[in-house]
Amino acid sequence: MEHPIKYTLLKKEKHTGARLGTLETPNGTYETPMFMPVGTQATVKAMTPEELKSIGAGIILSNTYHLWLRPGSDLIDEAGGLHGFMNWDQGILTDSGGYQVFSLADTREIKEDGVHFKSHLDGRNLFLSPEKSIQVQNELGADIMMSFDECPPFHESYDYMKKSVDRTTRWAERGLEAHQKWDKQGLFGIVQGGGYKDLRIQHARDLRSMDFSGYSIGGLSVGETHEEMFEVLDYTTPELPEDKTRYLMGVGTPKALIESVIRGVDIFDCVLPTRVARNGTLMTSQGRMRIKNAKYARDWRPVDEKCDCYTCKNYSRAYMRHLFKTDEILGHRLASTHNLRFLIRLMEQVREAIRNDNLLEFKEQFYEDYGYNEPNALTY
Amino acid sequence: MEHPIKYTLLKKEKHTGARLGTLETPNGTYETPMFMPVGTQATVKAMTPEELKSIGAGIILSNTYHLWLRPGSDLIDEAGGLHGFMNWDQGILTDSGGYQVFSLADTREIKEDGVHFKSHLDGRNLFLSPEKSIQVQNELGADIMMSFDECPPFHESYDYMKKSVDRTTRWAERGLEAHQKWDKQGLFGIVQGGGYKDLRIQHARDLRSMDFSGYSIGGLSVGETHEEMFEVLDYTTPELPEDKTRYLMGVGTPKALIESVIRGVDIFDCVLPTRVARNGTLMTSQGRMRIKNAKYARDWRPVDEKCDCYTCKNYSRAYMRHLFKTDEILGHRLASTHNLRFLIRLMEQVREAIRNDNLLEFKEQFYEDYGYNEPNALTY
Repeated sequence: MEHPIKYTLLKKEKHTGARLGTLETPNGTYETPMFMPVGTQATVKAMTPEELKSIGAGIILSNTYHLWLRPGSDLIDEAGGLHGFMNWDQGILTDSGGYQVFSLADTREIKEDGVHFKSHLDGRNLFLSPEKSIQVQNELGADIMMSFDECPPFHESYDYMKKSVDRTTRWAERGLEAHQKWDKQGLFGIVQGGGYKDLRIQHARDLRSMDFSGYSIGGLSVGETHEEMFEVLDYTTPELPEDKTRYLMGVGTPKALIESVIRGVDIFDCVLPTRVARNGTLMTSQGRMRIKNAKYARDWRPVDEKCDCYTCKNYSRAYMRHLFKTDEILGHRLASTHNLRFLIRLMEQVREAIRNDNLLEFKEQFYEDYGYNEPNALTY
Repeated sequence: MEHPIKYTLLKKEKHTGARLGTLETPNGTYETPMFMPVGTQATVKAMTPEELKSIGAGIILSNTYHLWLRPGSDLIDEAGGLHGFMNWDQGILTDSGGYQVFSLADTREIKEDGVHFKSHLDGRNLFLSPEKSIQVQNELGADIMMSFDECPPFHESYDYMKKSVDRTTRWAERGLEAHQKWDKQGLFGIVQGGGYKDLRIQHARDLRSMDFSGYSIGGLSVGETHEEMFEVLDYTTPELPEDKTRYLMGVGTPKALIESVIRGVDIFDCVLPTRVARNGTLMTSQGRMRIKNAKYARDWRPVDEKCDCYTCKNYSRAYMRHLFKTDEILGHRLASTHNLRFLIRLMEQVREAIRNDNLLEFKEQFYEDYGYNEPNALTY
């Protein structure tokens, strides 16, 4: 079978093995490592498609669970899929809905055939299965779809995790069968297994034996420490095929991005940059900035003097603070633009460092500037 | 004294006397009749300066009272005035603060020297006088400032209104004296007098005898009927000089704009288009559209098929409805863009109709399409 999603490994960084590559989709080819902005409800919060392009966004992520519930995937299908509905002509990736079923929905019951649960919006009874998830994702029409998985808590018991992983493997097989649009949409398998090395390795091998278009690493960034996450990556990514994309789901702190690239990951998504933006937290080359802080009241410098985004080229910290103190929508817009550009640009710098075989030097300087080396540094 | 604000009457419409003109400011020259978007807190809600330019906005309005309280006019002065602070290089008009003192502030006491009141934000005691209003506006640095006035309710008693109007005249004289930046900022007098013909005429004549850069008509759009408002304009505008701009404050329904232009008004401002936009009400050539209505769920047409705005060129009613049902910021943005463009374009059409001496025909067709001729039509 010909996959509509192709990964080409261009180069490995000399000292770390970090991968530089290209990810080809029916709607554009993108350089990796890459950060993907999240547009949960068919819109990256506060941003237009044109603005996303202007900050260098490539593929964006949207959420199967949310869109299935509202406005409905059949409606989006009628609009020509997500691309037509939201006017985005670049790549789109949809998750499987599994994560939201386990984190948002009420009174869920997991069975072999799928998951019964109640909608978090209106309490109605719903059922999501591997086949249903794929059907919904076929209607949404994203370039990259995810296999339906269970995402248990990281520290779930070994026995439970083993049973869950085996079921997720069976669900993966059913999803592959159900997928109807191989000409236009790729399908990724999701490796689970919590922090259990043997389960992660077994699951990676099981999924690798199936013909997925790429591989996701799930069940991370769900409350475990950075160290636990990096350890999982250390033994998981070597089990994944070199000629397919590796996607670490839900990761978006600068440190986690850099460390994961070093461990062989290609693509990432996270709500972090837009979520903290709306709360007035800006990511800068000098670390996090809480823009509502009184010290910025008469600070006429841009948010980040090293940033090339629209916000930093046109507005002062003092104006940004004013917008947040008065709860103006423009503040959310300018902060979201900045934070997304910050992470996208970080990945541009990471790619450049892979090309130049100086990723570790880049990392060292970045951590120093960002404040990660300070005692009690926050991790985001 | 040379005014930095100049009005040039280009033409009067043959059948109505509606004025086509240009309004020259230190930051651009604009055709009138013109609608000015409102940027209360140094931002037109949800919009960037570039977007405002792209929909044809010329002068925007900002609020003295709000900015004086937060972030402070001294801070904005330090930023290079409002133009520098909010990154807007076109015209800006500031109101006097009077209206907000009377509509927002608590426990106000009006005396000859000014108004004592409590801040609506934190309850602290404040005092606004003609001199203070002008000082604050000099710091804000708008191209056009307003004289400090009292804005009594439309149906206030004759005796109270007469005393108030006389005091507003004395305040106007004091404001003219206090103004320090005649090279960069014009100052408009504000005609009050409620619905009392003799008071309106007397006040217009009193203010006309002073050397203002233009004249505002205040105390309207505060709860009176459209008919009462139009009647006031009928006897007030003839008292204003032909060679200066006439500004009707707070007016922004299509009907009120057209009828007021017919009665000799040049410029307008109103929060209506952006306020109703955020509530999901869209102004279209076919009338008001409540986009959350279920009938738009699968309506793939643009909001207004006759509109040339970004929203209408790129998104469907179904997508707009989805954005409002999910309370997404992009919905507020796209609706604000559309409604502002609708009123700005309406004024472009009105100017064209003045040029062609067919304003009444234009009005008739517009009213028919918009639904104003239907029984029980809403006025906005």
